[in-house]
Amino acid sequence: MTLSLSAATSQRQPWRGLIEQYREYLPVSEETPVVTLLEGNTPLIPVPAIAKRIGRQVNVFVKYDGLNPTGSFKDRGMTMAISKAKEAGAKAVICASTGNTSAAAAAYAKRGGMKAFVLIPDGYVALGKLAQALLYGAEVLAIEGNFDEALEIVQKIARNYPVTLVNSVNPYRLEGQKTAAFEIVDTLGNVPDWLCIPVGNAGNISAYWMGFCEYHQDQKCDRLPKMLGFQAAGSAPLVKGERVMHPETIATAIRIGNPASWEKAVAVKSASMGNFYAVSDEEILDAYRLLASTEGIFCEPASASSVAGLLKVKDQVPTGATVVCVLTGNGLKDPDTAINHSNPQFKKGIKPNINAVAKAMGF
Amino acid sequence: MTLSLSAATSQRQPWRGLIEQYREYLPVSEETPVVTLLEGNTPLIPVPAIAKRIGRQVNVFVKYDGLNPTGSFKDRGMTMAISKAKEAGAKAVICASTGNTSAAAAAYAKRGGMKAFVLIPDGYVALGKLAQALLYGAEVLAIEGNFDEALEIVQKIARNYPVTLVNSVNPYRLEGQKTAAFEIVDTLGNVPDWLCIPVGNAGNISAYWMGFCEYHQDQKCDRLPKMLGFQAAGSAPLVKGERVMHPETIATAIRIGNPASWEKAVAVKSASMGNFYAVSDEEILDAYRLLASTEGIFCEPASASSVAGLLKVKDQVPTGATVVCVLTGNGLKDPDTAINHSNPQFKKGIKPNINAVAKAMGF
Repeated sequence: MTLSLSAATSQRQPWRGLIEQYREYLPVSEETPVVTLLEGNTPLIPVPAIAKRIGRQVNVFVKYDGLNPTGSFKDRGMTMAISKAKEAGAKAVICASTGNTSAAAAAYAKRGGMKAFVLIPDGYVALGKLAQALLYGAEVLAIEGNFDEALEIVQKIARNYPVTLVNSVNPYRLEGQKTAAFEIVDTLGNVPDWLCIPVGNAGNISAYWMGFCEYHQDQKCDRLPKMLGFQAAGSAPLVKGERVMHPETIATAIRIGNPASWEKAVAVKSASMGNFYAVSDEEILDAYRLLASTEGIFCEPASASSVAGLLKVKDQVPTGATVVCVLTGNGLKDPDTAINHSNPQFKKGIKPNINAVAKAMGF
Repeated sequence: MTLSLSAATSQRQPWRGLIEQYREYLPVSEETPVVTLLEGNTPLIPVPAIAKRIGRQVNVFVKYDGLNPTGSFKDRGMTMAISKAKEAGAKAVICASTGNTSAAAAAYAKRGGMKAFVLIPDGYVALGKLAQALLYGAEVLAIEGNFDEALEIVQKIARNYPVTLVNSVNPYRLEGQKTAAFEIVDTLGNVPDWLCIPVGNAGNISAYWMGFCEYHQDQKCDRLPKMLGFQAAGSAPLVKGERVMHPETIATAIRIGNPASWEKAVAVKSASMGNFYAVSDEEILDAYRLLASTEGIFCEPASASSVAGLLKVKDQVPTGATVVCVLTGNGLKDPDTAINHSNPQFKKGIKPNINAVAKAMGF
């Protein structure tokens, strides 16, 4: 660098990624090669139109984690998982995933100079869903088998070859994800009263709780939040208390019938005096459109389940409470839902003159 | 709020959006109702693999403005334009745009409680391109005319009705956009030696220069950067010095034959001892893939022109210089290009056992 002025001209410390920011809370050492895209530091946005629907001086914010580098909260876990894989000398990582995990795994692996393999069932998924991972340079392998077989094979591969498994069983993922809770407390100055979060594999609700508990232990907050987990009605094993064999929902990111972190999530519910609820696809889509058209926030359908859920149980929110809803992914990840489920206001065939246009505008 | 702990538990001031952060440099007052999605504060990411291709201790960063709330740098200008429109009492805003401007205008207008009208030529654009704006609740009006007529009509509408024009002629847009230059200086502690930027309508290069000059005047930096503007070869009026009647390029966000800020951009080139260059679509796509597969960064094709251009003129970069390339939009905005122009590494029909998969992985 040829720069000579001191950084004192700036009043803000540049954000150096979540590992540097929260190093003391993470299982990294000076020897860990940090692979980062400066993830984290996502905005906590007030959503006054949502709050107004609840009334009673309730404050509502969304943690908009779709503004992470690959467009979802998965980047928080992946910076940890990939940095630790690199530290351990891995030359490649592998996962079985068709969505946000494969995109994050590919981006961080390639940035870290490693190969990224993604195992999927043959014919399971349209190429478009994998476009992001493919552009990052993932090598996609389609097997003549189902998703459960793919999950089994990636675990065996990771045990027998110098390849690190970065599916949700990788313990470093939750460590990275817990930093979102730190950021919320750092921004609000305390925990929210309620934390509303979409629940699919149930890892993220467990990670947030871990983050709040660690901050509480360090007296960075004076209490713990109530944790409310929301599942799609057609894919709600935690609500029903049993596996769902054929989960179905428009919210594909939480379409999981047998969550990997099932027991952890149940423990969080109990410890936080929280609960799990189901929201219908229609409620999810209503919240999805409401967030975009009143707050200007475009999230994945699965993300909107946290807001749909909050509105569903709004009468239970204590007067004056502060609520944070987690939005896990960017709406741009799923353009098809935006095209098919907006309420388009589109007028065609207008004559090209000011009077005709003004009339079409309602003047 | 029921929160009682002091914010002193946090070591970072929460980011409150670019208007609050840079209020003293912006034409706002205490009376201005700030309409914000906490835009700005986007990461300045080191890109060592790009730097390595240049060598000679050159440092390269990308300003990843695709991580703004609606996925492009347009949010910087729109928070200003919409806040000022609201201050002036506007009940609606209008623009003629089919891309990032219409998405940003819709999101901020709706957040500010205003209507958003988007005027387009009939049959000009696929609904998919407008999905984001439609979901935000924009009202799209398609006229029986061409794009020039649409531009003319929105200007007339804005003169005759209580509707604010938020196309690039709106002067507040560049005021907001200049804050990206402030952020770069605040992060680096000084200006970079070179600023490489995609040039379409030529507003953004002018805005960055305005930002650098204002900071320089305030002694926040000790010099000014050389400004390098890159246009797509099929749409390079500033390089050729003449209007391009039928601009063509895969980089749709800079497919503009007659830039609105033409004269401003020429003045920037001259004042900064910079230059304009053209890059071919093939060079743009190479840089687009390179950024994703070596740095883990997914941008719009137009954004990649800044990196394509830097690599094209790399021998002119001074040894040891610091270079910032601006990435104006998120790659998720244009999934079709990702699908059609990745080099997919996709193997099918693999038997579902560990040996077959390991072999496919190269073991």
